[in-house]
Amino acid sequence: MSKHSASDISRQTSTLDTKELRLIDAWWRACNFLSVGMIYLIDNPLLREPLKPEHVKQRLLGHWGASPALSFAWAHLNRVIRRDGLNVIFMAGPGHGAPGVLGPAYLEGTYSEVYPDKSEDVEGMQKFFKQFSFPGHIGSHVTPETPGSIHEGGELGYSLSHAYGAALDNPELIVACVVGDGEAETGPLATAWHSNKFINPARDGAVLPILNLNGYKIANPTVLARISHEELEALFVGYGYKPYFVEGSDPAEMHRTMATTLDTIVSEIRAIQTKAREGGEVERPRWPMIVLRTPKGWTGPKEIRGHKVEGTWRSHQVPFSDVRGNSENLALLDNWLRSYKPEELFDSSGRLIPELRALAPNGRQRMSANPHANGGVLRRELKLPDFRNYAVDVTHAGRVLRENTHPLGEFLRDTMRENMNTFRVFGPDETASNRLQAVYEVSKKIWMAEMLPEDEDGGELARDGRVMEILSEHTLMGWLEGYLLSGRHGFFHTYEAFAHVIDSMFNQHAKWLDISKNHVPWRAAVASENILLSSTVWRQDHNGFSHQDPGFIDLVTNKSPSVTRVYLPPDANTLLVVANECLRSTDCINVIVADKQKHLQFTTIDEAIVHCAKGMGVWRRASNDEGVEPDVVMASCGDVATQEALAATAILREHLPELKLRFVNVVDLFRMQPASEHPHGSTAREFDSLFTVDKPVIFNFHGYPWLIHKLAYRFRNHENIHVRGYKEKGNINTPLELAILNQVDRFNLVIDVLDRVPRLQARTAHLREDMKNAIISNLEYAHTHGIDRAEITDWVWPE
Amino acid sequence: MSKHSASDISRQTSTLDTKELRLIDAWWRACNFLSVGMIYLIDNPLLREPLKPEHVKQRLLGHWGASPALSFAWAHLNRVIRRDGLNVIFMAGPGHGAPGVLGPAYLEGTYSEVYPDKSEDVEGMQKFFKQFSFPGHIGSHVTPETPGSIHEGGELGYSLSHAYGAALDNPELIVACVVGDGEAETGPLATAWHSNKFINPARDGAVLPILNLNGYKIANPTVLARISHEELEALFVGYGYKPYFVEGSDPAEMHRTMATTLDTIVSEIRAIQTKAREGGEVERPRWPMIVLRTPKGWTGPKEIRGHKVEGTWRSHQVPFSDVRGNSENLALLDNWLRSYKPEELFDSSGRLIPELRALAPNGRQRMSANPHANGGVLRRELKLPDFRNYAVDVTHAGRVLRENTHPLGEFLRDTMRENMNTFRVFGPDETASNRLQAVYEVSKKIWMAEMLPEDEDGGELARDGRVMEILSEHTLMGWLEGYLLSGRHGFFHTYEAFAHVIDSMFNQHAKWLDISKNHVPWRAAVASENILLSSTVWRQDHNGFSHQDPGFIDLVTNKSPSVTRVYLPPDANTLLVVANECLRSTDCINVIVADKQKHLQFTTIDEAIVHCAKGMGVWRRASNDEGVEPDVVMASCGDVATQEALAATAILREHLPELKLRFVNVVDLFRMQPASEHPHGSTAREFDSLFTVDKPVIFNFHGYPWLIHKLAYRFRNHENIHVRGYKEKGNINTPLELAILNQVDRFNLVIDVLDRVPRLQARTAHLREDMKNAIISNLEYAHTHGIDRAEITDWVWPE
Repeated sequence: MSKHSASDISRQTSTLDTKELRLIDAWWRACNFLSVGMIYLIDNPLLREPLKPEHVKQRLLGHWGASPALSFAWAHLNRVIRRDGLNVIFMAGPGHGAPGVLGPAYLEGTYSEVYPDKSEDVEGMQKFFKQFSFPGHIGSHVTPETPGSIHEGGELGYSLSHAYGAALDNPELIVACVVGDGEAETGPLATAWHSNKFINPARDGAVLPILNLNGYKIANPTVLARISHEELEALFVGYGYKPYFVEGSDPAEMHRTMATTLDTIVSEIRAIQTKAREGGEVERPRWPMIVLRTPKGWTGPKEIRGHKVEGTWRSHQVPFSDVRGNSENLALLDNWLRSYKPEELFDSSGRLIPELRALAPNGRQRMSANPHANGGVLRRELKLPDFRNYAVDVTHAGRVLRENTHPLGEFLRDTMRENMNTFRVFGPDETASNRLQAVYEVSKKIWMAEMLPEDEDGGELARDGRVMEILSEHTLMGWLEGYLLSGRHGFFHTYEAFAHVIDSMFNQHAKWLDISKNHVPWRAAVASENILLSSTVWRQDHNGFSHQDPGFIDLVTNKSPSVTRVYLPPDANTLLVVANECLRSTDCINVIVADKQKHLQFTTIDEAIVHCAKGMGVWRRASNDEGVEPDVVMASCGDVATQEALAATAILREHLPELKLRFVNVVDLFRMQPASEHPHGSTAREFDSLFTVDKPVIFNFHGYPWLIHKLAYRFRNHENIHVRGYKEKGNINTPLELAILNQVDRFNLVIDVLDRVPRLQARTAHLREDMKNAIISNLEYAHTHGIDRAEITDWVWPE
Repeated sequence: MSKHSASDISRQTSTLDTKELRLIDAWWRACNFLSVGMIYLIDNPLLREPLKPEHVKQRLLGHWGASPALSFAWAHLNRVIRRDGLNVIFMAGPGHGAPGVLGPAYLEGTYSEVYPDKSEDVEGMQKFFKQFSFPGHIGSHVTPETPGSIHEGGELGYSLSHAYGAALDNPELIVACVVGDGEAETGPLATAWHSNKFINPARDGAVLPILNLNGYKIANPTVLARISHEELEALFVGYGYKPYFVEGSDPAEMHRTMATTLDTIVSEIRAIQTKAREGGEVERPRWPMIVLRTPKGWTGPKEIRGHKVEGTWRSHQVPFSDVRGNSENLALLDNWLRSYKPEELFDSSGRLIPELRALAPNGRQRMSANPHANGGVLRRELKLPDFRNYAVDVTHAGRVLRENTHPLGEFLRDTMRENMNTFRVFGPDETASNRLQAVYEVSKKIWMAEMLPEDEDGGELARDGRVMEILSEHTLMGWLEGYLLSGRHGFFHTYEAFAHVIDSMFNQHAKWLDISKNHVPWRAAVASENILLSSTVWRQDHNGFSHQDPGFIDLVTNKSPSVTRVYLPPDANTLLVVANECLRSTDCINVIVADKQKHLQFTTIDEAIVHCAKGMGVWRRASNDEGVEPDVVMASCGDVATQEALAATAILREHLPELKLRFVNVVDLFRMQPASEHPHGSTAREFDSLFTVDKPVIFNFHGYPWLIHKLAYRFRNHENIHVRGYKEKGNINTPLELAILNQVDRFNLVIDVLDRVPRLQARTAHLREDMKNAIISNLEYAHTHGIDRAEITDWVWPE
């Protein structure tokens, strides 16, 4: 296997003079000293007295293995930031190596600025060590509490897409993204390399990927560290990069090679950007990247009791434990810590010596204090057009059919127009499919890969487009998160069923927001993550069973109420009102469920405003219980669910005019929960006034029926709520057939009412029979003609 | 951009003589004719009368674009299967192009064998056309109803990992896997290419990836079709393949090139396998693959009204609609269909002519009838050792601490020993972390990438290993699914929180099983998918908030009760009983939640057998309500939840001996649902006899508390069930601190009981105060020492 070794390259040129080399190595030693300290020490942080068992933590936690290379990259980035006045943020893919990021943040002074009790002295360092991975304090991964970070280091897979998201529309920014070789095995990371086809050097910033091959995961070697140099190089050339290899273990040689390589790369990035920004045609460049091959647990114990430690999986977490009870291990730790020569690095007060302090950039140029990594401070309010301008004209409710998402597309188009550098739309090749194609009038799809002549004919591609489309929900969501957390705004849409692809990303972002909003006061509020689920279950009749899954919102209800919102607008105008609200909000994840197909329109824009403000309410025109307690409440939540519930009430009004019926529609799902559980929840009084305390409620729901019980079980009338929803019955159907299979259709809903109002039962055998026959004849029609009868959208909404 | 064009290659050699070329092209034309027929026609299938509007479906659905290339690959694979007697199955990554797979299955006669009404004549063909994507019939994607397929074509991303899973331990099998260039953008697919580092040519079969670059997704070009030939080639060299390029659009040239290429590749695969099987050291070969670049919608209309159609996104689904109402379009369809010359392909009865029938292999050699694609028919019962041999000795319940998953590892070890070629364990680099490392005694981790000397020291790697580890839950789950659906057995384990990474794969597999089990009688039962969630929320106190998520089981409860099972065994012996049950079961997804850390042991193996058979039941030793109605029921589900609930009852027994308390433990989660809802559900009588009809129930649950309400809301005493569980409160904690934050700890549970038994309230102010003080002092201890007090696992379980 041939390699460019560090020594080969460093012999060629030498960017660092002897003094610089000594200083940068000293700064890095300080980082490594802090990393070991965080993992092991609870006291005596600078070893100014002999190390004793009681100075060592009782429970040793943290990941040493990834830490030294993170600090190494940080130290070298600082050199070029300072020298060239660069604007750089740092993304720590191997986020388990938090010590390698926390150390630099402390040495740069940022940590003490943000957390004054972790001051730059012996006392502060002791607290800084103790708090690490200690009950009630900070995590062993890079968490929201870490200044300079917008990337949670717990779950792996998203560092590179986060990095690209942060670089979009930030022309001066360089996002240095260390990718771990463990993380590189995940699917989301493996495809995120292709993000370079979606970044425009004239307008966007640069991402500098630094693939750190430390060779091991928890207990296994990594794939990329165990393929030949030729394959590795080919892989990244294939991904569209120009890989530079920095490989070795001797610190001095590695410092020289890294410095030389970084200098070359910074020049190359500048050359690429200059060329693109001087006008003329912008083409996709071959962006540089670094393959940094270093031993896992670099500079740690080389061998312990005959087992190789540095450069193996044994360095992944805590290289050796049992320190308090084992004097041999205590000595090992003492030697290890002293190998960094802390006495040369920190002054008598415990502060980094001035010569080394001078290596860090100043103020906001410090990666630990770069405002792009606390995006809320840079966020500007979105300039929103008046959503009422896009309203559907509903002169006769329940008559006109419109694609619910189409006006939203026009609203998003003009939102984009007004916020050209701070707002983007993201979707997996489905912007047009989800009927949001109006956005292309203002900005097309960014495409830096090859263009063909036929793209001119409706391809909607452009080098300067801002609509983001790739067939990877992971990449899109990663881009969006990076874009939001660095202070911008965005809108993601996807097919409802396949939102589950990014369940885990949703979970992690919700956790990030929950901590940031409620426990990290210095983090400014960021724009909410807006997720439209379209092409929903009820209109996946034609795509079939695999495309039918309304369960994403179930997941949402498991996360912190402080950051989760779910809306199911029944028509185009309510969707506009809800979307407007979502785009204005901060620090939440807003999930909107709205189908793209043509649906009946029910509310004027003014009615929609009033209705959405309440979140749920009675629709009087579909009710006839004015002034009296109803016999039954018909409730709906979701577009198709509402259509069918309204059709059922129309049938009931016609055949049983004496039945007192109340129609309730729910837009804001969390209104179904008690106010004690969710900020949008209802008081008992509010809930009871709509749903009564003892009358039967037929609740026609968009999603899995159990969710309503989960939310509403504490309310008084809960026992009488009969929920219909998707129960995992479907195949290739017509829309009505799919509704019938799951009993959310008008006919079954009428039967539900008849079943639950005992006094009706004797007199309604005929109506019940009619409903059963209607079901049979509609299914027969569907199976013969392949479509529903035209008249199923043709029913009476009272004037 | 330089290319190897089809013509360059075909000029060099010519595998096909003129007659063979004519025949293979005719067979392919028959496929394409059928594809168009399926999408458009409801009658007049062979155009034996002039095409009229009423012969065309009212609703036109399906994906033409991907279909021709699928059939093209199929036709050419048939040639080498027949000639060389190969054993090949076909994986259709672009599963939306179902017509391209259904056509071949019909032409081979398999479709008519499986569905006799779709006979090989005009009448059968009419039904075959009509049923496609027609309400009440089969889907527009490759679904379980498709003979020859084990890969659902709805959601994209998993074809290649499915292919590799099917090839494992099937030395004679070749899995031809067509990967779509849309799907290739997904993360799961992008990393699945690395599966070649986990396949051993001496023992496993071969995967032949055929990347079909048809250039477009729904409305966008694809990334891989728009990078240079050099990058594309480098990418696949980097992934470890030897790519062969078959590129062009002229059918004759493409046939010649494809035939030549396939001949070369088949020889190469054989050479690789022969070399590996002749003994000596097995090394990772560079496996061949094909890059098949063809126009999207190949052979369809080239242009319609000035817009390019063939070779663009316009061919993705139905190239033109409005056929019944537009005579120009009707003529277009007529011409298109007749361009395949059906009169030359089918005899007077409507059957494929004998000359073409002879092109397909016979019997089980047909890819559409290969038994590996109906794995249940090949499945052999797993030879299971007696799980009782691995039992933990529990002489004193509640005294001894053991890692719950450790004995399971020994049971899996011997299961693997007894079923060396039909059972594998899969996990994301966590087999040892999850304490299942005993399996390495029988088989190590397969590793075909580079080996280093230090791997000898505890690396547990081997070329002939059968334990599958890669840091990609997607890839692992894909392998497992491919392995199961081709007739073998497996066990997957992962950290609980990160099971959400594969939520969507779970959904799709559950849907596949639901349809296969209940609607496709010819599919034989396959082994269940067994998923162990370990490193669970309550012991992620040290990894923190990002690692805490017990919500995967919520998702499971949304899928068909016919195929879903969830178990939460409280200790090592119940885990053994449950695992034994799961390994014996078929056609289900069994989810087992059990932590890996040391926990108190409660049940002897005999008690565990009895308890698990019931699924839930009273633990008498922790109860004192013998012969009387209890004052309160304390229930638990999950290991830590059970420990804390038992500790609470111990406190209550000591301080309030007169309190009549019943302790119920739930192992089989679906026992909490009514029997009408789930086959493991409880009757009202069963439920009421445990939980009473009116007494307070404190239910200490492993997961999100709402799940219990969702399951149990129909039972009579539901209103009195007070559920404790994870409520998204956590950070870096001690285990007890994490429990306290979420109120599942012993002290809060005692307070819960005091709150709910009114007659106690006056007399128990002191105890309540004690509990509050215990909480405070334990938190103080944790925050000072970083660990819990030793005595928290030291409490009294009655003799």
